[in-house]
Amino acid sequence: MDLNADLGEGFGIWRLGDDEALLDLVTSANVACGFHGGDPSTMRRVCAAAAERGVVIGAQVGYRDLAGFGRRHIAYAFEELRDDITYQIGALDAFCRPYRTRVRYLKPHGALYHAAATEETQAAAVVAAVSDYDPDLPVLCPAGSVLAQLATGAGLRVVAEGFADRGYQPNGALVPRSAPNALITDPHEIADRAVRLAAERTVRAVDGSTVPCPVESICLHGDTPGAVRAAELVRAALLDAGVPVRGFVG
Amino acid sequence: MDLNADLGEGFGIWRLGDDEALLDLVTSANVACGFHGGDPSTMRRVCAAAAERGVVIGAQVGYRDLAGFGRRHIAYAFEELRDDITYQIGALDAFCRPYRTRVRYLKPHGALYHAAATEETQAAAVVAAVSDYDPDLPVLCPAGSVLAQLATGAGLRVVAEGFADRGYQPNGALVPRSAPNALITDPHEIADRAVRLAAERTVRAVDGSTVPCPVESICLHGDTPGAVRAAELVRAALLDAGVPVRGFVG
Amino acid sequence: MDLNADLGEGFGIWRLGDDEALLDLVTSANVACGFHGGDPSTMRRVCAAAAERGVVIGAQVGYRDLAGFGRRHIAYAFEELRDDITYQIGALDAFCRPYRTRVRYLKPHGALYHAAATEETQAAAVVAAVSDYDPDLPVLCPAGSVLAQLATGAGLRVVAEGFADRGYQPNGALVPRSAPNALITDPHEIADRAVRLAAERTVRAVDGSTVPCPVESICLHGDTPGAVRAAELVRAALLDAGVPVRGFVG
Amino acid sequence: MDLNADLGEGFGIWRLGDDEALLDLVTSANVACGFHGGDPSTMRRVCAAAAERGVVIGAQVGYRDLAGFGRRHIAYAFEELRDDITYQIGALDAFCRPYRTRVRYLKPHGALYHAAATEETQAAAVVAAVSDYDPDLPVLCPAGSVLAQLATGAGLRVVAEGFADRGYQPNGALVPRSAPNALITDPHEIADRAVRLAAERTVRAVDGSTVPCPVESICLHGDTPGAVRAAELVRAALLDAGVPVRGFVG
Repeated sequence: MDLNADLGEGFGIWRLGDDEALLDLVTSANVACGFHGGDPSTMRRVCAAAAERGVVIGAQVGYRDLAGFGRRHIAYAFEELRDDITYQIGALDAFCRPYRTRVRYLKPHGALYHAAATEETQAAAVVAAVSDYDPDLPVLCPAGSVLAQLATGAGLRVVAEGFADRGYQPNGALVPRSAPNALITDPHEIADRAVRLAAERTVRAVDGSTVPCPVESICLHGDTPGAVRAAELVRAALLDAGVPVRGFVG
Repeated sequence: MDLNADLGEGFGIWRLGDDEALLDLVTSANVACGFHGGDPSTMRRVCAAAAERGVVIGAQVGYRDLAGFGRRHIAYAFEELRDDITYQIGALDAFCRPYRTRVRYLKPHGALYHAAATEETQAAAVVAAVSDYDPDLPVLCPAGSVLAQLATGAGLRVVAEGFADRGYQPNGALVPRSAPNALITDPHEIADRAVRLAAERTVRAVDGSTVPCPVESICLHGDTPGAVRAAELVRAALLDAGVPVRGFVG
Repeated sequence: MDLNADLGEGFGIWRLGDDEALLDLVTSANVACGFHGGDPSTMRRVCAAAAERGVVIGAQVGYRDLAGFGRRHIAYAFEELRDDITYQIGALDAFCRPYRTRVRYLKPHGALYHAAATEETQAAAVVAAVSDYDPDLPVLCPAGSVLAQLATGAGLRVVAEGFADRGYQPNGALVPRSAPNALITDPHEIADRAVRLAAERTVRAVDGSTVPCPVESICLHGDTPGAVRAAELVRAALLDAGVPVRGFVG
Repeated sequence: MDLNADLGEGFGIWRLGDDEALLDLVTSANVACGFHGGDPSTMRRVCAAAAERGVVIGAQVGYRDLAGFGRRHIAYAFEELRDDITYQIGALDAFCRPYRTRVRYLKPHGALYHAAATEETQAAAVVAAVSDYDPDLPVLCPAGSVLAQLATGAGLRVVAEGFADRGYQPNGALVPRSAPNALITDPHEIADRAVRLAAERTVRAVDGSTVPCPVESICLHGDTPGAVRAAELVRAALLDAGVPVRGFVG
C-alpha cells in the first residue's frame, strides 16, 4: 500500500503542516507547486528531503489562488487550466533534477480535486496537461471520478486513493464534510481502517455495511499534531499487519 | 549572427509587443516565464509559434514582480533567487515539450539583467540555477559582465549580445539611457550598425572611434511599430550583406 | 442620462482601453481597484483626470484574479467576498482624497457583475460591503437583478444601467454573447439606441418589439478605436436630442 | 508609554504570530495591509478586535512582496511607492469604519522600514502618502531617521519607537542583527529595559554606557511563545513601576 500526503504547502514566511514528520511516514509526496501554496525554495527543500528518503515526488497542482489556498472553485476555461497545470508540473520537475529524480505522478489539489472529479472540462484539462507533459505519469484521484474515467480513456494510469480518516457512505462515496461522521478522529480507529483498506480493499460504511474500496494509496494528513500522530499509527499498523508500505510507482 | 528578442511579455488580457512579427525575424526567442510577465497560455502560444518557425527558445527569467515588470531591483537572497529562476526555467520547459523542443538557453530580464551584470550574489544565483538545471544551457548576457565571468568560471557557455540601437562608449560599455545618444532611432542607421557588428564585430562609439564588440547575438525590440520596422531592416541588411542569420545554438 | 465606462484597467506596464478618450465622454468613471486590473499609480492617475473633468468616480470592484481579469467565476464565501470588496473601495477612496473627491458609487466587474446579478451569496456580499462602508453609495447594476433586489431591500440606492451596443430579448434581458445579434457594431445604430434609451426608456428587442428599459445610466466601451468612436457618437447624439448628459450622483 | 506590535500578518490560510495575545497587551496595533502580509478578512478581524479593546489602529504598510514578506529591499520609484502606500492606508481605513474607528498612524514594515530610515526617495514617498491622505496621521519610526526628518519637515508628527529586546550601540543605533548582542532574549531583562526606556528615556548600550533614547512607543513582538511571554512581562513591569500604558494618540 502506498501512503501519500500533501507537502510543501507553506508560502514564503508562512508554514503549514509538518513536512518533516510526514516525509518519514509516506511513500508518495504530493508537493505543492506554487499556485495555491508552495514557493520555489520550499519546493526545492521538500524535493531534496523526499529524494533523500526515497519518497516519490508528485505534482500537487492547484488553482492560481494563494489567497484562497486553491479551495474556491474557479470557472477556468479548458486551455487556461491545462496551461496552468502544465506550468506547475514543469516548475516542480525542475526542482527534482538536482536530486536526480523527477515528477512521478500528479494529484489535483483542493477545489480542483473536486471539480476534476465531477466536471468534464476541468478533468479534461488535467488529462491534457499530463498527456502533453508525460503520458507515463499516473494520476492520483478518486476511483470512479470523471477525472479517473477521462484519464483512463486517454491511456493514462489512474491510481485510486482512499481515506482512513473519512466516513464513507454505503455507495462508496465520502460522507460530505458538513454531515455527521464525516471525519474520524480516533487515531486507533483510523489505523484500523487503514489496515482494512490495505488488506481487504474495503471500508466499513456509516451504516455498518462493508463496502469495496479498491485503492492503491491512502492519503494521510499532517496539519495538526493529532493528524501526525494518526499518520504514525497508520504506518505502524500497516507494517504490523504485514502490509508492505511502498510507492505505487517503482 | 543570431538575432534575439523578448517575447511573450503580456499577462492575461494584457498584451505587450508584437510577438508574431518578431518571431518571423529572430532566431532566438527570449520567452518570459510568468514572474515579470508572461502567463502559462501565452508561454504555450509563443513556444508553439517559435517551434513552428524553428526559432530557438530561451528562458527569459525575471524577478517576481508583475507590478513592476521586473524592472525594479530586488535585494534577493542567493537561494531565493536561484530557486525563483529554477522554477521559471522548468515551467517554460514544460511548454516546449508538446512541440518537441526544449529550453535551449537563458537570458535574465530587466533589473535582474542589470544586477547579474554587476552583483556577485545575483550572478551566482543565475549560474547556480542553470548549472543545476542543465549545465549545457548557454547564458545570454553582456560580455565582460560579472555574470559572464561567473558563468564561464562554472563551465557554462556564455553568449555575448550586442545592441544595434544603443549608443556605445569608447570603453565598450553602453551609453546610459539617461545620457544623450543612448538610443539610435533611425532604422537605417540601426541596420548599418547591425551589419558592422556582424561583419566586423565592432561598433562606432559616440566619439567616432571604432570599438571591438565581439558579440554572437544582436538584441531586437518590438514594442513599437518603429521598432518592428527597424528589426525588419536589420534582418534584411544582414542577409543582403551575406551574413548568415542563424541561432547560436544549433 | 448618465454615461459610465470602465477605466483604469491596465496593470503595471500593461495598458487597456483609452482612458483619456473616455474621460472626455462619460459622466461616471468605473475605476478598477487593483484586484482584476488597475494598479495604485493608475488609480491615482485616473482619479486625478476624472476629478479635473468633474467626472464622478465609482469603485469598479472585482475578484482577486489578475490572470483572469476577473472574468472567471470564483466561488467565494460571503465574508471573503465582502472583505475583498471593502478593501477595494477603501483603496480607491484613498486616491480620491488628494483631488478633493471621493468614491461616489460601486459597480461590480466581470464575473462578479454576473454572479451578483443571480447569486444571493455574492449579491449579499456586495450589499454588505457597501452598507458597511457608506450606505449612501448607490450600486450600479442591471435592473431586476438579485443584486438590485438585495440592495434595495437593504436601503441602498440602485442605479440601473443599460447598453446601447447590446441586443435585448423581448423579456428585457440581454442577448447572450454567444448568440447572434448579441453585439451591435454600427456606431450610428448604437447612437440611435442610446437616444431611445434616454428619451423613451425603451429598446427595440431582437424580434422588433419595443421593450421598456428604465435605465439611469448607459455603459460605454473604449477597448477598441471603433468603440471610442461609437461612444463619441452616443454622447453627441444625446446632446443633439436635447438629453442632458450628467452624472446620476449630483 | 505606548506599546505597539505588528499584527494581522498572516495571509489566507496561513497564520503568523499570536494576534489575540498581543491585542491584550498593546495600545497601538500596526495592522498589515495586504502587500507584505495580511488579507482583507484578517484585516477586518484584527480591526474589530482592536476596536473592541480600545487599541489604536495604525497602517503597517509594506512593499508589494508576499513571497518575501516585504523584507527584501525593492528599488521603487517615488510615485509607485507613494501610491502603493496610499492604497494600503485606504484599504485598512475601510475596515475601521464598521467599528467606528479609523487609521490613526502609519508605520513602515520590514525593508521599507529600513529603507525609509536611510533613503530620501523612499522616505519622501512615505511622507507624501501620509500628507496626501491625512496630514494629522503620525508616523511611527526611529528617531533621527531620514523618514523622521522629512516627516517633521513636512509638518507631520513623528513618534519615535524603541526596542526593549534589541541591543543598542553607544551612538544610539541598534546593534545589527548579524552582530553579537543584537537580541536580548531574557524576558526579565527585556522588561527591565522597557521600564528604563519609559521612566528615564535611556538604554544601557552594549559597552555599558547609558544612552539617551527619547521614545514614545516600545515595539513588542509576538512571533514566538517566548516573545509573547516577554511582552506580558513588559506590560506588567511598566504598570508595576507606575508608568501609564496608553496610546500615543488620544
